[in-house]
Amino acid sequence: MTKKLTYGMVGGGKGSQIGTIHRKALNLHGKVELVAGSFSRNFKNTLITGRELKLDEKRLYNNYVEMAEKESKRNDKIDFVVIVTPNNSHYDIAKSFLENGINVMCEKPLTVTLNQALELQKLANKNNLLFAVSYAYTGYSMIRYARELVKSGKIGEVRFVNSQYISEWMAKVPFIGKVPRHEWRSDPDISGLSNCVADIGVHVENLISYVTNLKIHSLCARMDKFIEKDRLDDNASILVNYDNNSKGIYWTSQITIGHENNLNFGIYGTKGSIEWSQERANYLRLSTIDEPFKIISRGNDKVSDHIKDEYVAPGGHQEGYVEAFARIYDKFVDAIYKRKQGEILTPSDIDFPTVEDGVQGMRFVEKCLESSNQGGVWVNF
Amino acid sequence: MTKKLTYGMVGGGKGSQIGTIHRKALNLHGKVELVAGSFSRNFKNTLITGRELKLDEKRLYNNYVEMAEKESKRNDKIDFVVIVTPNNSHYDIAKSFLENGINVMCEKPLTVTLNQALELQKLANKNNLLFAVSYAYTGYSMIRYARELVKSGKIGEVRFVNSQYISEWMAKVPFIGKVPRHEWRSDPDISGLSNCVADIGVHVENLISYVTNLKIHSLCARMDKFIEKDRLDDNASILVNYDNNSKGIYWTSQITIGHENNLNFGIYGTKGSIEWSQERANYLRLSTIDEPFKIISRGNDKVSDHIKDEYVAPGGHQEGYVEAFARIYDKFVDAIYKRKQGEILTPSDIDFPTVEDGVQGMRFVEKCLESSNQGGVWVNF
Amino acid sequence: MTKKLTYGMVGGGKGSQIGTIHRKALNLHGKVELVAGSFSRNFKNTLITGRELKLDEKRLYNNYVEMAEKESKRNDKIDFVVIVTPNNSHYDIAKSFLENGINVMCEKPLTVTLNQALELQKLANKNNLLFAVSYAYTGYSMIRYARELVKSGKIGEVRFVNSQYISEWMAKVPFIGKVPRHEWRSDPDISGLSNCVADIGVHVENLISYVTNLKIHSLCARMDKFIEKDRLDDNASILVNYDNNSKGIYWTSQITIGHENNLNFGIYGTKGSIEWSQERANYLRLSTIDEPFKIISRGNDKVSDHIKDEYVAPGGHQEGYVEAFARIYDKFVDAIYKRKQGEILTPSDIDFPTVEDGVQGMRFVEKCLESSNQGGVWVNF
Amino acid sequence: MTKKLTYGMVGGGKGSQIGTIHRKALNLHGKVELVAGSFSRNFKNTLITGRELKLDEKRLYNNYVEMAEKESKRNDKIDFVVIVTPNNSHYDIAKSFLENGINVMCEKPLTVTLNQALELQKLANKNNLLFAVSYAYTGYSMIRYARELVKSGKIGEVRFVNSQYISEWMAKVPFIGKVPRHEWRSDPDISGLSNCVADIGVHVENLISYVTNLKIHSLCARMDKFIEKDRLDDNASILVNYDNNSKGIYWTSQITIGHENNLNFGIYGTKGSIEWSQERANYLRLSTIDEPFKIISRGNDKVSDHIKDEYVAPGGHQEGYVEAFARIYDKFVDAIYKRKQGEILTPSDIDFPTVEDGVQGMRFVEKCLESSNQGGVWVNF
Repeated sequence: MTKKLTYGMVGGGKGSQIGTIHRKALNLHGKVELVAGSFSRNFKNTLITGRELKLDEKRLYNNYVEMAEKESKRNDKIDFVVIVTPNNSHYDIAKSFLENGINVMCEKPLTVTLNQALELQKLANKNNLLFAVSYAYTGYSMIRYARELVKSGKIGEVRFVNSQYISEWMAKVPFIGKVPRHEWRSDPDISGLSNCVADIGVHVENLISYVTNLKIHSLCARMDKFIEKDRLDDNASILVNYDNNSKGIYWTSQITIGHENNLNFGIYGTKGSIEWSQERANYLRLSTIDEPFKIISRGNDKVSDHIKDEYVAPGGHQEGYVEAFARIYDKFVDAIYKRKQGEILTPSDIDFPTVEDGVQGMRFVEKCLESSNQGGVWVNF
Repeated sequence: MTKKLTYGMVGGGKGSQIGTIHRKALNLHGKVELVAGSFSRNFKNTLITGRELKLDEKRLYNNYVEMAEKESKRNDKIDFVVIVTPNNSHYDIAKSFLENGINVMCEKPLTVTLNQALELQKLANKNNLLFAVSYAYTGYSMIRYARELVKSGKIGEVRFVNSQYISEWMAKVPFIGKVPRHEWRSDPDISGLSNCVADIGVHVENLISYVTNLKIHSLCARMDKFIEKDRLDDNASILVNYDNNSKGIYWTSQITIGHENNLNFGIYGTKGSIEWSQERANYLRLSTIDEPFKIISRGNDKVSDHIKDEYVAPGGHQEGYVEAFARIYDKFVDAIYKRKQGEILTPSDIDFPTVEDGVQGMRFVEKCLESSNQGGVWVNF
Repeated sequence: MTKKLTYGMVGGGKGSQIGTIHRKALNLHGKVELVAGSFSRNFKNTLITGRELKLDEKRLYNNYVEMAEKESKRNDKIDFVVIVTPNNSHYDIAKSFLENGINVMCEKPLTVTLNQALELQKLANKNNLLFAVSYAYTGYSMIRYARELVKSGKIGEVRFVNSQYISEWMAKVPFIGKVPRHEWRSDPDISGLSNCVADIGVHVENLISYVTNLKIHSLCARMDKFIEKDRLDDNASILVNYDNNSKGIYWTSQITIGHENNLNFGIYGTKGSIEWSQERANYLRLSTIDEPFKIISRGNDKVSDHIKDEYVAPGGHQEGYVEAFARIYDKFVDAIYKRKQGEILTPSDIDFPTVEDGVQGMRFVEKCLESSNQGGVWVNF
Repeated sequence: MTKKLTYGMVGGGKGSQIGTIHRKALNLHGKVELVAGSFSRNFKNTLITGRELKLDEKRLYNNYVEMAEKESKRNDKIDFVVIVTPNNSHYDIAKSFLENGINVMCEKPLTVTLNQALELQKLANKNNLLFAVSYAYTGYSMIRYARELVKSGKIGEVRFVNSQYISEWMAKVPFIGKVPRHEWRSDPDISGLSNCVADIGVHVENLISYVTNLKIHSLCARMDKFIEKDRLDDNASILVNYDNNSKGIYWTSQITIGHENNLNFGIYGTKGSIEWSQERANYLRLSTIDEPFKIISRGNDKVSDHIKDEYVAPGGHQEGYVEAFARIYDKFVDAIYKRKQGEILTPSDIDFPTVEDGVQGMRFVEKCLESSNQGGVWVNF
């Protein structure tokens, strides 16, 4: 009877939403166990959270520094740490764990500057550690199938991409009172130089990159501050040129009343197109030059067997955000396990978003700012 | 550090789909641990499955009888058993565990006859055991909110219900070859007297009963055998009269090509209506006499806080079948835990489908057969 | 320069909705001219309406008897009459015009009894006149394409039909005050023996018959009076058996709050299915055994050229109710014109709903009543 | 008995699609009669078309010059001319009729240069003639209601607009052979300096301007030539700044396989949003800060009575492109009629797109070209 892998968490204390999601996503496949944590800057919160989660109190730590150091010295040290704190602390925390030889899963955006991200990348590589970033949407089966369809040439060469991540919460803040859980997102001291692009724009950048494999060559961004003029962006319109002469529009917003969390894309090629929306996550709309458009659902015979093999719910049923998230984690956990067994990882083992994706996200944020701050000029990527 | 509750499983060996779903649904909230199993009539399969799941081999059993008896004698006996075998074995297995003092979660349909179901109900009550039936759709948050809306009078008194559970797999069998995993469903020796009504019709009966609290008074059923004349029903049209003079149509099918798993309903009252579809499980369509129709999604401000408190994924994101299933299990597990702590359960603790629901399902199956076998006459319920 | 055909109208005076629609539908293709009318029992209304429509006052008549007689004696008598009065007067009016040798387009339901309908059918045949009934939905291009698809065997042999015509206006009556324009529909003295089945149920019967060519063999109907117990039916659930062992469910309602005018169907065959909804009238959902489902729109390459040749708006644009209606009228007008030219009509010229369809509708109404009045027994058709 | 107004048409001969639509739209309300035409540069085609339409051959003209001159000298001269020729001839034809004192309805884009458009505007004003441009989408009832909603403050102040007009026909050309009817659109000699922006981009510009009353202050455009490098644009991405600090994205395309004719918008304000799509033209999606989103359909009680009074098909039924077009024409015809009666027109009589809208469209085309030709710089409007 082999033991499960173990992990610890920084952030995610009582009142945190995202910490709970990570833990449930990690629960789903039953391969790992949470054993350590520094869930809050407030140790009382850490204690309460740790007790609720039935952890050994010896492994509840005052802060991440103590946690990284003490865990690294244990024989049964955690196999990886999950970082679910606000943006501005990601860098220091990730660095600590990497320096102490512990694999990392970090929330996006990876850091608050591109330089920090590049340093983490270097450090992870130097220390030969696995470093994942929680771009969870890439875990949806239909996203994985979309990627395959593009790669297979089904829609020909991609000409144009339209992708949006539009939501409403910032528009509601002045009406329903501050939402403390989210308020820090528009606070430059915690969130960094960007709110909207850093929080959800990076999902668009990553998702399109994942599905199409297109590389951004240059972009022109207009970042808006509709809600509070002196805070951070809450809306952004970005024209994108890719390396292969294809083009795109990205639109990301927190002020589009009527949309809770509408992430979607259309990818238009020389022979067809693929469209997807997070609100219909288990379906793809596939059009080809010679056929009416089709809705492909998870149960469809066309979907590749290796994608179906990873289903949690059978075709016809719905898989949600946690299943997508769990798929990302599952790949990450399998890679850690394989390496722990002494095996050498092949590229196909790295089937999860990595620190490289995190770096790319930060480059995207900085380039958008560079363009927008000059009034929406074109900048090379 | 309190220990987790433990459970065992009968059925769900390698190759089983539904066993995996139960285990993942049980994993999600991290409150229980699988420790015992008789996963197959074939002990080799049980061993393989048990090893994969990292169980102690001492608790892998040759058959359910041995499992029920041996587990019941352990100090650390399982807190409940999950039964995920074909229909015709539910009765014997459930009976064994109930007689050995172990709580039960059983797949639907509960049994193959109403009498068996009534016996299990009696036995569970006599032995003061908790007995759940896996009507998982009632675990969706929007279903729970729909039930509240009906109860609150938002749509007035219900006049009419239209509900469908339509799918296509039986229509595909002659084309794509037998689907061994499902084939037993149309085999009377394993499935009992009904395929379609027993397999998915009972979901309609349970879901409408859950959301509306309407009691069926009489029904008129036409059960069809489109695929194979000498096997079991694959389609059924059922007119239903409820106690309060409201009426309904239930339609359940396995031959509607183009629908993988379309469970849906519309409930029409004197002041408004509610509509829901499994394919858009995180959304309700609410219409009232004086307003355009509205789409209510999980993130909406109107949804009750106590429902939101149980979300796994935040509003705007998707929850799927496993989250719904996990919610049912979570209520069941909490009830077992509470009773184990010596507390007395109140009615509100029984917030999951019980053996009574299972009995009702079997009554529904038998009444449909009674009506249909006489050419579609009206029969009292 | 050939002259246009001319027509007269009975009913459709100021305040009438349906009369206006008929006139606009007749305007669309510019082939006919309104020249005579008895628009109301109240001659003042007839005069006002006639003036607004710029008719010669000599051809505004006190009543339909006078109109039929006087028109029949003119050299330039109307080529056809349009009857858009309440149900109970259809028979007498149609009879008058038929006896006076004038072709007829009559609103549905054709009459208030099957016998009346049969008499009109006999009379029209005896006098060799064209008699159309305004089942306008059969004029939608996608309905015509659906009919072709079924005929071509694309979905194999039809096994099951589900069709609904659900609306809400009766449910609103008690809340928003009587709607005088519609109130007569639930008044037995004017509407006849049925409200809901006669008004919209016949559309379901006709539409399914048109698209599938299935013949009803027997049916079991439950007709409800939810709004006013002492008036006519406002909801009906009908199980249908067809001649070829295929089956169907028809549901027609005026109390489904949230649905203004939702006419839809699904037709499920051995190889595929077709689905359509009036609310998405320019699209068909086509599923086949080996393909994901497809949405076929008017502009699609697969749609037959002869159907496209009759488009008013180009593919990609929307055609509405009036275009569908105009298509029916266009076929009717062409047939009258052809016969007037002395040509002999072939079956393919009769490409509009005829008195035979009207008779079938009345048979449907009477059979539903026969079944429902006996408590929902099966009756042969 | 007053006589109908009369009109003539330039273009729209046999084989023309758009000419037929204009004629049917003009037929619908029965207020005008086609009496003259120069349907083609080829007089034979004019003769054939004129005969089919049953026109007096004396009023079939060799060319538009002859037509304008001869008609202007008749006592019963046409009340207006409809111009449905390719872009590059609009200017000369319109000028001829204006100089001869005849009101004009012209297809969009109004001309091929802004200067031409300004001249026509000047000439129409000087000669006190009515000049409409066929932006037909503004005739949809739901567009008119959307405009009212914005004006009423229902969604607060507009912050952001996203609008698309995406289609696929250019992407299909290389596969299915040249489509002669459309081919000239990408021919600079006929179409002018732009294909995609001039053909469909101007619809976006006009529609948003109509619904929001926002004035464009500056824009940044990227126009693409995906299909043929040496021809005209087939796709364009345009960032727009409005006068009041609100912003927008316009995307217009002829290469998005899977979209026949998808014109849509979302308008996001401080208190809510409105969304509409041509493919669901009879429905609006309305969201407000404190309510789930609602679907408003034509039959809804909230829609203003004066909008409902203009319905052709009753609520619940569908109105299509021709009904929208007919509404525009109806306003235009009513204004001509009123002026002919000697009445003075008030601003509310000019309830149709005018030459000013046509000018604005041409300014939009030229500004997009100015921006795009410089690599996508921001240009003032």
